[in-house]
Amino acid sequence: MPALYFTEVEYRARLAATKVEMEKSGFDTIILSDPANIFYLTGFDAWAFYSPLFLVVSCNLDQPIWIGRFMDAVSARDTTYLRDENIRSYPDHFVQSSTSHPVEPTSEILKERNLDKGSIGVEMGAYYYTARIHAEFVRNLPNVRFGDAELLVNRVRLVKSPAEQDYMRQAGRIADAAMAAAIDKCAPGVRECDVVSEIYKTQISGTPEFGGVYTTSPPHFCAGERVRTPHGLWTDQPLQNNSPLNIEIAGARLHYHCPISRTVYLGQPPESYWRLADAVVEGLNTTMDSIRPGMTAEEVELVWRKSISRHGFEKEARLGYSIGLGFPPTWGERTTSLRPGDKTVLQPGMAFHCMSGLWLENTGIAITQSFLVTENGNEPLTLFERKLAAKN
Amino acid sequence: MPALYFTEVEYRARLAATKVEMEKSGFDTIILSDPANIFYLTGFDAWAFYSPLFLVVSCNLDQPIWIGRFMDAVSARDTTYLRDENIRSYPDHFVQSSTSHPVEPTSEILKERNLDKGSIGVEMGAYYYTARIHAEFVRNLPNVRFGDAELLVNRVRLVKSPAEQDYMRQAGRIADAAMAAAIDKCAPGVRECDVVSEIYKTQISGTPEFGGVYTTSPPHFCAGERVRTPHGLWTDQPLQNNSPLNIEIAGARLHYHCPISRTVYLGQPPESYWRLADAVVEGLNTTMDSIRPGMTAEEVELVWRKSISRHGFEKEARLGYSIGLGFPPTWGERTTSLRPGDKTVLQPGMAFHCMSGLWLENTGIAITQSFLVTENGNEPLTLFERKLAAKN
Repeated sequence: MPALYFTEVEYRARLAATKVEMEKSGFDTIILSDPANIFYLTGFDAWAFYSPLFLVVSCNLDQPIWIGRFMDAVSARDTTYLRDENIRSYPDHFVQSSTSHPVEPTSEILKERNLDKGSIGVEMGAYYYTARIHAEFVRNLPNVRFGDAELLVNRVRLVKSPAEQDYMRQAGRIADAAMAAAIDKCAPGVRECDVVSEIYKTQISGTPEFGGVYTTSPPHFCAGERVRTPHGLWTDQPLQNNSPLNIEIAGARLHYHCPISRTVYLGQPPESYWRLADAVVEGLNTTMDSIRPGMTAEEVELVWRKSISRHGFEKEARLGYSIGLGFPPTWGERTTSLRPGDKTVLQPGMAFHCMSGLWLENTGIAITQSFLVTENGNEPLTLFERKLAAKN
Repeated sequence: MPALYFTEVEYRARLAATKVEMEKSGFDTIILSDPANIFYLTGFDAWAFYSPLFLVVSCNLDQPIWIGRFMDAVSARDTTYLRDENIRSYPDHFVQSSTSHPVEPTSEILKERNLDKGSIGVEMGAYYYTARIHAEFVRNLPNVRFGDAELLVNRVRLVKSPAEQDYMRQAGRIADAAMAAAIDKCAPGVRECDVVSEIYKTQISGTPEFGGVYTTSPPHFCAGERVRTPHGLWTDQPLQNNSPLNIEIAGARLHYHCPISRTVYLGQPPESYWRLADAVVEGLNTTMDSIRPGMTAEEVELVWRKSISRHGFEKEARLGYSIGLGFPPTWGERTTSLRPGDKTVLQPGMAFHCMSGLWLENTGIAITQSFLVTENGNEPLTLFERKLAAKN
């Protein structure tokens, strides 16, 4: 029996919602490549997307068809509700071959199922839907009209079910624990890699009640000079006293992510840095106090923008993004952003990372908050105190 | 001053070798998307490929041009030797936008540098070179003939320099330490996630002399029923006695990877499982004893195939693949595979993971070896004993 993370009823509802969107967009069939979308619709959970991996959803089929490398089909039987006939694979000689491509046998499966016609949506901008894959589909399926179905399923994922919300709360507990372990370990003279190793240990061991899985992205750990950069890598160097350090991480529970960033200051922060921290914390708190269903994404950003501008600051980058399921290379859902122009209306069950950080010419700071939109307002997904972690 | 991992002389040699391959292939310019290739030619090291990231190499320019999201340009200044004029970026409103795409400003930069003509190679099958990105380039650069330059730089990377070989040996030490930590932690009743957390901790803390960085892929940790699967995910469940457990991990030193797999058997393995282990270890040892420069990749596989067939076993999947630099989702270089038909001639400085594992109907085993090809034979990159780790 496969070990499903959700009920089959929930998977059926997700599939039904996807088919509604397909009909709206005029697609008879879609071919998915985004591992998060494949996981969402089937539960498939193995590291298989390094080789072309597809999920074919057709309005005329009751189940999707999983197609991947032969040796990963066993994992499809172990982790999905799909019937055996809907778990298909290509032989190993197609893997990273210079003379053939996995899309050839994949196209044969589509023909066999009579799906090699009409309008097929593909995820044009999904990370693993390469230009080569698309060219091979166009060549192998000459009777198909291809259209762009990128983000079609991502948008279905925007509102989280109660079961998904529970996993996101658990991810929040893991994120809290990992950030606490990091800050606890930070001290002048400790190698950066030794702090990060404690983060990883806690991200995976999780809590006594539930463990964690890998996150889509490594910790962003920016100390010393790199505090000006948002996505830098840790080094082997020892931490220095009297300087800030930005840590951005997530907890991941069964691929549901809850991110958090905190700045740690080793030593006594100068007055100017406290002012920066106060502006960011005030901006974050003011924003969080305002968030409720019915607001648009851009209205949320405006609250923050007004607040920090009173302190003379400005942020070019978006204030945040929708979160939920994630596979490398990002825990953002790639749909809604908290920024000017995004008119998505917040609904109960949506989740976001409010990325209230500033990267300035010579320094940086990040004190952030992941949250769920609720019926009446919002629920913080991490419980970590919103403040600069000054550590003497 | 940027913190370079290699001398500028070495970066210049890599660029020169790349330009030789470009001329052979008839490309005036190539646009790279593979993060490992971008790292290889410039040293760029930050988590920036979740948004379109490009490196433009032209035969007419002395340096490549880095193009990415504006907030990651600071990391390009911190980690590469590129002059400021060659670090370019696009504003934040292009990131995950529904109305514009980062290829638009990227194409403007190409025009400005007079590179919007002639024959341009792109990495058609590279993970982050999406169908959308390619379509946008074709639309924005109508005077360009696009060709496929996938693996052009990957092939330049096949033979490792002495400095790269040193990093790979260090990655091997980290892999050895992480595997030792895993086996040490394994015991009946211990949660799978708690074993994996020790792996991560050691992968990152590394050794007292050098730390580790994130690996391209999470540990593949397949216990119980999942021992039949090669790329399964750990669970929260406690390990059971009297069953095998496959662990595949890597150590990563500055993105140079050294993978290793071992099977742990908790309890007393039955005679039949010992026979399986003996066949795999004999096959691996026989293969390793044979490997020397001048052999072809398929000849290496044949040694293994003959050895295990004497015990009645057969492996459909390739025996191994070239290793070196890696970014998610794979530590394989995607060039040479140890399998029938691959006629690549082994040369000193090439590195491979000999993936001597078998996944059978009801069980699985993996006892593998990463190695460098040397002047006279080969050098094992991990020192872990090649045997089944039976643990009573």
